[in-house]
Amino acid sequence: MTAAILTPAHATASADATRTEHDCIGELQVPLNAYWGIHTQRAIENFPVSGVPVSRHPELIQAYALVKQACARANVRLGGITTTQGRLIDAACRDIYNGGFNDQFPVDVLQGGAGTSTNMNMNEVIANRALEIGGHHKGDYAIIHPNDTVNKSQSTNDTYPAAVRLALIFALRALIRSCDALAMSFLALSHRTEDIVKLGRTQLQDAVPMTFGQEFGAFHTVLANDSHKLNDEIARLAVVNLGGTAIGTGICADARFRGLVTKELRNVSGIPASAADDPIAATSDMADFVDTSSHIKRLAVHLGKIANDIRLLTSGPQAGLVEIHIPARQAGSSIMPGKINPVIPECVNQSVFTVMGMDTTVSCAAEAGQLQLNAFEPVIAHSLLDGMRILAHAMDTLRTNCVEGITVNEQIGLVRATNSASLATSLNGYVGYEEAVRLAKKALAEGRSVHDVAVDEGVVRREILDDVLDPLKLTRLGR
Amino acid sequence: MTAAILTPAHATASADATRTEHDCIGELQVPLNAYWGIHTQRAIENFPVSGVPVSRHPELIQAYALVKQACARANVRLGGITTTQGRLIDAACRDIYNGGFNDQFPVDVLQGGAGTSTNMNMNEVIANRALEIGGHHKGDYAIIHPNDTVNKSQSTNDTYPAAVRLALIFALRALIRSCDALAMSFLALSHRTEDIVKLGRTQLQDAVPMTFGQEFGAFHTVLANDSHKLNDEIARLAVVNLGGTAIGTGICADARFRGLVTKELRNVSGIPASAADDPIAATSDMADFVDTSSHIKRLAVHLGKIANDIRLLTSGPQAGLVEIHIPARQAGSSIMPGKINPVIPECVNQSVFTVMGMDTTVSCAAEAGQLQLNAFEPVIAHSLLDGMRILAHAMDTLRTNCVEGITVNEQIGLVRATNSASLATSLNGYVGYEEAVRLAKKALAEGRSVHDVAVDEGVVRREILDDVLDPLKLTRLGR
Amino acid sequence: MTAAILTPAHATASADATRTEHDCIGELQVPLNAYWGIHTQRAIENFPVSGVPVSRHPELIQAYALVKQACARANVRLGGITTTQGRLIDAACRDIYNGGFNDQFPVDVLQGGAGTSTNMNMNEVIANRALEIGGHHKGDYAIIHPNDTVNKSQSTNDTYPAAVRLALIFALRALIRSCDALAMSFLALSHRTEDIVKLGRTQLQDAVPMTFGQEFGAFHTVLANDSHKLNDEIARLAVVNLGGTAIGTGICADARFRGLVTKELRNVSGIPASAADDPIAATSDMADFVDTSSHIKRLAVHLGKIANDIRLLTSGPQAGLVEIHIPARQAGSSIMPGKINPVIPECVNQSVFTVMGMDTTVSCAAEAGQLQLNAFEPVIAHSLLDGMRILAHAMDTLRTNCVEGITVNEQIGLVRATNSASLATSLNGYVGYEEAVRLAKKALAEGRSVHDVAVDEGVVRREILDDVLDPLKLTRLGR
Amino acid sequence: MTAAILTPAHATASADATRTEHDCIGELQVPLNAYWGIHTQRAIENFPVSGVPVSRHPELIQAYALVKQACARANVRLGGITTTQGRLIDAACRDIYNGGFNDQFPVDVLQGGAGTSTNMNMNEVIANRALEIGGHHKGDYAIIHPNDTVNKSQSTNDTYPAAVRLALIFALRALIRSCDALAMSFLALSHRTEDIVKLGRTQLQDAVPMTFGQEFGAFHTVLANDSHKLNDEIARLAVVNLGGTAIGTGICADARFRGLVTKELRNVSGIPASAADDPIAATSDMADFVDTSSHIKRLAVHLGKIANDIRLLTSGPQAGLVEIHIPARQAGSSIMPGKINPVIPECVNQSVFTVMGMDTTVSCAAEAGQLQLNAFEPVIAHSLLDGMRILAHAMDTLRTNCVEGITVNEQIGLVRATNSASLATSLNGYVGYEEAVRLAKKALAEGRSVHDVAVDEGVVRREILDDVLDPLKLTRLGR
Repeated sequence: MTAAILTPAHATASADATRTEHDCIGELQVPLNAYWGIHTQRAIENFPVSGVPVSRHPELIQAYALVKQACARANVRLGGITTTQGRLIDAACRDIYNGGFNDQFPVDVLQGGAGTSTNMNMNEVIANRALEIGGHHKGDYAIIHPNDTVNKSQSTNDTYPAAVRLALIFALRALIRSCDALAMSFLALSHRTEDIVKLGRTQLQDAVPMTFGQEFGAFHTVLANDSHKLNDEIARLAVVNLGGTAIGTGICADARFRGLVTKELRNVSGIPASAADDPIAATSDMADFVDTSSHIKRLAVHLGKIANDIRLLTSGPQAGLVEIHIPARQAGSSIMPGKINPVIPECVNQSVFTVMGMDTTVSCAAEAGQLQLNAFEPVIAHSLLDGMRILAHAMDTLRTNCVEGITVNEQIGLVRATNSASLATSLNGYVGYEEAVRLAKKALAEGRSVHDVAVDEGVVRREILDDVLDPLKLTRLGR
Repeated sequence: MTAAILTPAHATASADATRTEHDCIGELQVPLNAYWGIHTQRAIENFPVSGVPVSRHPELIQAYALVKQACARANVRLGGITTTQGRLIDAACRDIYNGGFNDQFPVDVLQGGAGTSTNMNMNEVIANRALEIGGHHKGDYAIIHPNDTVNKSQSTNDTYPAAVRLALIFALRALIRSCDALAMSFLALSHRTEDIVKLGRTQLQDAVPMTFGQEFGAFHTVLANDSHKLNDEIARLAVVNLGGTAIGTGICADARFRGLVTKELRNVSGIPASAADDPIAATSDMADFVDTSSHIKRLAVHLGKIANDIRLLTSGPQAGLVEIHIPARQAGSSIMPGKINPVIPECVNQSVFTVMGMDTTVSCAAEAGQLQLNAFEPVIAHSLLDGMRILAHAMDTLRTNCVEGITVNEQIGLVRATNSASLATSLNGYVGYEEAVRLAKKALAEGRSVHDVAVDEGVVRREILDDVLDPLKLTRLGR
Repeated sequence: MTAAILTPAHATASADATRTEHDCIGELQVPLNAYWGIHTQRAIENFPVSGVPVSRHPELIQAYALVKQACARANVRLGGITTTQGRLIDAACRDIYNGGFNDQFPVDVLQGGAGTSTNMNMNEVIANRALEIGGHHKGDYAIIHPNDTVNKSQSTNDTYPAAVRLALIFALRALIRSCDALAMSFLALSHRTEDIVKLGRTQLQDAVPMTFGQEFGAFHTVLANDSHKLNDEIARLAVVNLGGTAIGTGICADARFRGLVTKELRNVSGIPASAADDPIAATSDMADFVDTSSHIKRLAVHLGKIANDIRLLTSGPQAGLVEIHIPARQAGSSIMPGKINPVIPECVNQSVFTVMGMDTTVSCAAEAGQLQLNAFEPVIAHSLLDGMRILAHAMDTLRTNCVEGITVNEQIGLVRATNSASLATSLNGYVGYEEAVRLAKKALAEGRSVHDVAVDEGVVRREILDDVLDPLKLTRLGR
Repeated sequence: MTAAILTPAHATASADATRTEHDCIGELQVPLNAYWGIHTQRAIENFPVSGVPVSRHPELIQAYALVKQACARANVRLGGITTTQGRLIDAACRDIYNGGFNDQFPVDVLQGGAGTSTNMNMNEVIANRALEIGGHHKGDYAIIHPNDTVNKSQSTNDTYPAAVRLALIFALRALIRSCDALAMSFLALSHRTEDIVKLGRTQLQDAVPMTFGQEFGAFHTVLANDSHKLNDEIARLAVVNLGGTAIGTGICADARFRGLVTKELRNVSGIPASAADDPIAATSDMADFVDTSSHIKRLAVHLGKIANDIRLLTSGPQAGLVEIHIPARQAGSSIMPGKINPVIPECVNQSVFTVMGMDTTVSCAAEAGQLQLNAFEPVIAHSLLDGMRILAHAMDTLRTNCVEGITVNEQIGLVRATNSASLATSLNGYVGYEEAVRLAKKALAEGRSVHDVAVDEGVVRREILDDVLDPLKLTRLGR
């Protein structure tokens, strides 16, 4: 058997063949082909809500497989399960990690139950895949039991958060890669334009001269900062609570399990996992997810501002600012011939709005925990993983379909910087603020440069003027 | 050819065969099988962001097909397109409306471009399907042109909002059906429990007696109100701006087009469409979508409160309030044997949090419009349609998997209502508030009923007490 | 005694003189001068949180005085209190309504207790003011008791929501006045500029010609719609639940009280108050407040967009769009001489962000109700009243300090409209979309008008061109 | 003259006496008594919006005074202002820092202008106070000029963010103090209850035994974590951009100014200030404020959960969980005698909802920056300072009026822990999950303890049972 044939279509095709499973509620038919069991089957029927299955988040499936693998290894070492059971579970986890069984995780992402359905889904798929590898029939749980063997020394209370944390780390890494690439793209653009002068603006009003390089360099700076912030998240998310079992009490787990399983998780995942200090607090606390959400939102706030700026600067082609050109990506209008719109930044803006919503969802869910658990971790996990994927992709398209092709309008930049009445700012030190006001107003009213007005009025000596009013020289600090 | 074979898999399979199309940017290869054209092809490549294609929202495809059908009919009547063109477009729109071409709308829901990609996608699929019906080759746009023929007298500025509005109406109808069904389910539950007394609570503290019927009846009331609210939305959303074309000026459209197309839209959709008073304002105004979002959120707020109450009332089975029983839907724990959790209400809570996020997204996007257009309508449409579907499904599972099976703990209800020190409230009128305070405190301290304390202390005559303190009689107004 | 001397300073000055009051917890010293009593005194000490007292919202004090006045009158008619008591309470309520006792409401707006502290504060001030009018000493509650007399037939559960609803109606009226005035201001501006042509923009890119009058007219339209929406709120908020008493059961109230008090409330307030259909649901349901919040947010979304547009259109003075001029209100910079910034629209934007936060607060609070009550109505009331006041003031300053002084740059408008390559749109019907694309691109590339290019190339007859490309005539529909 | 007599009343009293000042717009009368000048006067008239003056945030006034003091010292060292000017400004800043001039900052917190009004307000008050100290008349700006002298080498672009950052640090310190005190209060409570057993709950359903000490200890843990997080904020906020002047270019400032002023700021403030790496980015970037907001929200999420838990656990007094007792702080009802409500936690919840709104406001404002500046920093500063103050006060009242007086219901805790069917969890390792399910269900159905059922059925040996099912021993890991 290869994983490749485990398509949902395949599973469905033979869905008329079933096996019977039972739980504390009663019996139920499960598709004979399915690696999942009764707990998953009930969950499929209970939560037909968003239409988005857990398999939409392969990071979560991979992460959970690693958690289960680490648990199995620790259980073998403590004698909780047999070496044979451990070997089979290990192999099953590896197969799942490798992606061949994603379609076996059909439960809705908005599932109730605090992640129990995903945990039991994982327990069942592991058990049945392990049984299969061992030459047994699916459902032969006397040999490998989803609860007693696979879930040994574990609870959803501790394994689900651990899996979510690992999944977020995987997603963060992808997000950081996209963020870094975009930041580098702005840095390259900044270097290409570092000596090209333009007029800076505050409050959409003409301010003082700067360079395009400074403007794009600032985009690099804020994204590089975001990248660092996101990277710092990873260490915090690597703190897991395995061995906490139910509500962090450690019930059903050997006292040595916590240390062993955390070490095994480091081994199988390569992530520097450590154990939470307060297992009771760790069971219900969603603060690290609130933080993750906040930092994703922080990045989104930057991206929104960047997209807005790009759209402003490329406004035109005739009646706008027309300071930069972005690549034409598609016809902009079904009716206005030749119109080209900044569709890529607009796509970014919409991703940003989506992430703003994500943060609301996460905050509301995090605040709604009660007593020893937050039952709403599934929507938190889903929202974060979805938000991160969207933002990563938005940055990718922004980089490849827009930023890399940006060119600047050098002539407009120079003309605006040179002619601006705001150059009077540089005269403050020579003539005082109030006299500079007079010069600026006069220049503006007469449509002349402050340079000319100041010379004609003889308020400053000509020899210093060229230096004082050189737009490029005015930009020194920020370089 | 039947629509059934137009699966994405099929289209992909022969993707090596292509045809060449061109636009204002240049040429591009389009899959030979595809009904879409170059504009769609570019958009697919520009927006690989959320991974959710427009086809996730069949309501939007259906709605847009109706809009295009109405436009074609109006165009024929005004001589803008030929009768033959009109007939072929009409047939194509009908086919699309019937769902056979959903897979031909692959552009991401977070597309930039203010909906132009979806409009052009629709124009292209209609053109190519119409060409096909007419016995022509796909891409033979000299006969039926996506812009000149299908999009005749139209802009994305006016057709996209119209299609979104119709789609929201379709989705609202489904949402209302689910809401009504849930409301009726609570009403039936209320009737089943109308004489069963329990203790009401304010601020989680014991208040005065009421009936279970009143408690569930209140759930019916708020949902029935929501249903009315949502229904009122439909009329507002039926105001369209067809004929407004670019930014509401009506450029490129015959002056009679506006009236004709609005009438045709009524015919083909059965919706009482009317034309907006101010076409310029209507082009950029997102307020009706903000309202729709608000009313969905309003419903969500109710559902969240209801889910919370159900979870509180069913808390236990030993150490909680244990006032109601909800159906056991699945094993609640991977470690705690026999534990049953309120997974269905929890699923509802998470849907509610998702909708809270939706509202944030919609508000942010609505506020970000600039000048004559809001470029972010696609994310608004997507968020609203997604939110409505999730909430409708959440209500369905709440109804069928929970509310219909709720039973109440009659004995606990009666004991708590009868023994509560808060019954002293009913003595206010006889002994005054301050004396009633004394009786309540004494009853509570001594673990006796207020009834007994009042009798022993002789503060009220026995013959009125039985009446005054009868929990059932105390509940009269709210029935 | 006149109300005028009841300043907080005065009350504080003699705070060393106290009187003793008691409640179910024990005794406490209350300032001798204070009209409030022990319940208020405890609340002052319990909630030193926001530093904002209830007196910040005089609408709420006025509204509650009317509610209490109506209750007193109904109680007299039913014999629940004596005619003398009723007369004194009536007079006290009138005095409070007239504003002389605002400083007697010092409890924090973020008070716990679901409004009980404000209700008891009101009961105590009424009682003591009534006692004073009657020639009695403050605290002589045997004559007029805060609970037994003033609060007769009432609970916080029913009177607080009623008072909040009336207060919101008062605040809505002020908000609507400001909204209408601003809308009219835009209408006048629209009339002043109705024939002045400019270039419209979609997605910040040049679109087709329109008039300034259309642009400002759209601002009028959306605000006028908001005004209607807000006005519709009033009827919904006029549904009160008086007579519901504790949790809507009507306990402690004569069955006739509900009808009588609702009628009296109509008399004293002039508001068409009616009684809620389901008193149980009405006690805990916050949906009308969610709606109010939503409609305030809707207005805010419009104001944000309007402020953004004004700031865009007035960007410059040299390197921006420079299409409109707004009045210079203050020096814009401490360092850049002569810089003028759009400070009034910026103030509006910030008010809008504040209102976005308000809506989040209200939604969260509304969703958090439990069982028979929502304990968080005080923060809802405070947030809404604060948000409305801010928005009303923001509209006032926008109108008087900005909109009324707006002038447009007629020449720039005309030049941009006439020279725009987007005029090619009007050629679609003559040459087809693809040929029009070619003309637009050529015009743009060569810096010539589409008009000239089309004439030179002979693609359309000269005699129709002047008509087809007249920017003013292109704007017909939206007028 | 002493600062003490500078009350607003005093300033107002002589408001009929004025002096004339002028700016780039024209002349205006300023109250003769006022230390502020024409820029402030115009701002008062421009922004009558929230009614909350900048003086509501004394931290901001103190912080800005320190920034100006540091700038004056650096200017003296570079010869930009005279030693005498420097000495007078220094003294004026010290006076302002000490609080005597708070009433001289009357501009609305929702001011437009990106903080320019607050900067100019500060420049004017410093100038006039310095003039006064030097024996000159107010308004004698030829001696000390608000722009040329006080604002020397500065812009609002760099000093306002610096002042806001310092103000946030001051407010954070207060917030952290309150957070630490509350955390310690929970720790003490945890110690008082560390051996008292109770039943833990997940999803509001009975889970496994734990101790009250563990439950309260988790509250300590999460708050202690928050405190660390907030403390980390301080270092980030200490990065300032002084010397960046307009848009970060450093125009008008000596190149050495940046280093000198940052050092002087460290001296006068005691805060380890450093200069931003990228002055252009630092001018417009609001990310640190988004972070601050997020971490305040994180704390709020914890407080909301804690308040919810306290309200749940103290629910009753008869028909609730009744596991803990909180101090009675005030009568809970105007109608229900003796009712006591958890008003303090409810106040906390409402503070939390307010902070959720704050975060929305801050996020929206942060995302709305354009090009080289974010004009909306005033609303960000106000929202954060307001949110922090509210949360600090909420924690204070929660600690002193609630947590310190919490007692637990030891007997109920023990009974529930001992009798719970969920004790079957501890049998998993002995009898397997499925058999444990059977025992749990049987115990629950028959109302017996799992202990008894297991013994009677002989499924485990009696000698291990006492150990396995001892609730206290089951709680070991989390201690």
